[in-house]
Amino acid sequence: MQRYKCEIIYDGSAYCGFQIQPKDRTVQGEIERALKKLHKGVDVKIQASGRTDAGVHAVGQVIHFDSDLDIPIGKWELALNTLLPHEIVVAKTEAVSNNFHARYNVTGKEYRYFIQLGERRDPFKRNYAYYYPYPLNLDAMREAMNYFVGEFDFTSFCSAKTDKEDKIRKITSMELIEEENMLIFSFKGNGFLYNMVRIIIGTLLDVGRGKKRPDSIPAIIAGKDRKLAGKTASANGLYLWKVHY
Amino acid sequence: MQRYKCEIIYDGSAYCGFQIQPKDRTVQGEIERALKKLHKGVDVKIQASGRTDAGVHAVGQVIHFDSDLDIPIGKWELALNTLLPHEIVVAKTEAVSNNFHARYNVTGKEYRYFIQLGERRDPFKRNYAYYYPYPLNLDAMREAMNYFVGEFDFTSFCSAKTDKEDKIRKITSMELIEEENMLIFSFKGNGFLYNMVRIIIGTLLDVGRGKKRPDSIPAIIAGKDRKLAGKTASANGLYLWKVHY
Repeated sequence: MQRYKCEIIYDGSAYCGFQIQPKDRTVQGEIERALKKLHKGVDVKIQASGRTDAGVHAVGQVIHFDSDLDIPIGKWELALNTLLPHEIVVAKTEAVSNNFHARYNVTGKEYRYFIQLGERRDPFKRNYAYYYPYPLNLDAMREAMNYFVGEFDFTSFCSAKTDKEDKIRKITSMELIEEENMLIFSFKGNGFLYNMVRIIIGTLLDVGRGKKRPDSIPAIIAGKDRKLAGKTASANGLYLWKVHY
Repeated sequence: MQRYKCEIIYDGSAYCGFQIQPKDRTVQGEIERALKKLHKGVDVKIQASGRTDAGVHAVGQVIHFDSDLDIPIGKWELALNTLLPHEIVVAKTEAVSNNFHARYNVTGKEYRYFIQLGERRDPFKRNYAYYYPYPLNLDAMREAMNYFVGEFDFTSFCSAKTDKEDKIRKITSMELIEEENMLIFSFKGNGFLYNMVRIIIGTLLDVGRGKKRPDSIPAIIAGKDRKLAGKTASANGLYLWKVHY
């Protein structure tokens, strides 16, 4: 058996998240269905770097699976993409050692969050960015962003629905890229808790609107209480951008 | 009663075309539903510059309607957009004379057609461009495009399903814009027959693939036979870009 590592791109708007579910359409479900077809009815399980929620997109999700099919490197992409629905694309496949694990070997991840600004919602972006019509103080938001960089207990920025005990994560950089009518937030870190990026975005929007002061962030982190942070920003703006190993 | 002219943007991928239908979700149906709500249950009919098919988008569709509501110019957009689904946006509303008619007064239209190239399909473009994985001879396509500019009987480039008798139309310009992995065709003319842009695109793709010669276009036009032209390219790449009055 050979282990393969795949980079996957998907539009999450049509799916009930990554993780396979008995009834709903999921990204994992579709990939495993394609692999099963390719393997003439034999089940092939995949492991991903982590889940993504319903509506969340990925341009750099990573999975691994084992196969004894004799498909040359460079041909897996076409073989799988012809079997996958159009919302999911295999961008790159490489043979890796059997020790490689898409989840356990992750050393870092980058997420991006897209916010569409402007007087009117762009209908072509409705599934691909969070529309925010109110004016934002970007200087205040940038100031607040600096307080998130470092190693902290991010309990205040984690959904209560998590099953993770250890809430300590390290954010190595946060960046705000301004494009025409679009704000793009880049988050890099060693790992992210459930809804962490979306709750940080919701909190930054409170700062941008003047509802929270930039220097209130350290106390929100220190309080270890989800209620201190802002709302969970919507899923449609979030992209799993890159996974590092 | 005051007549209003509105510019409308819509993502057609979620709709069964523009024209209202008893059961299916249509752009006209949604706009008339929003207007009815705004007019406290009174029906308000709209007239558009023309229909668009299921899956076809618009960034510059124009409609008109009559109303005696006392809403200042500049406030109609927000009033309607809060009532419309996110796929449809009113971009601009102006008061016009009661002689204005969104369909009868059209002097010209621009359509654009987007083709995504490249080794793999972009999942985020699947509803917004036609994916074409094969290499294309763009010089041959540009040569063929020149033969379409002028006034012709476009019977060969019209769906047999049309009810229009007069098939003579004038194309004033055709342009090909190359962007990274994307071809954008701009068509300007005094009017377009049913499926005309999509059949011209299908024919140009035959030329680009070497299945038809660029100089075969005049004979295809002169033949006045739909079977001489190429396939109807898919709806997802087509945009009603601008309507002129």
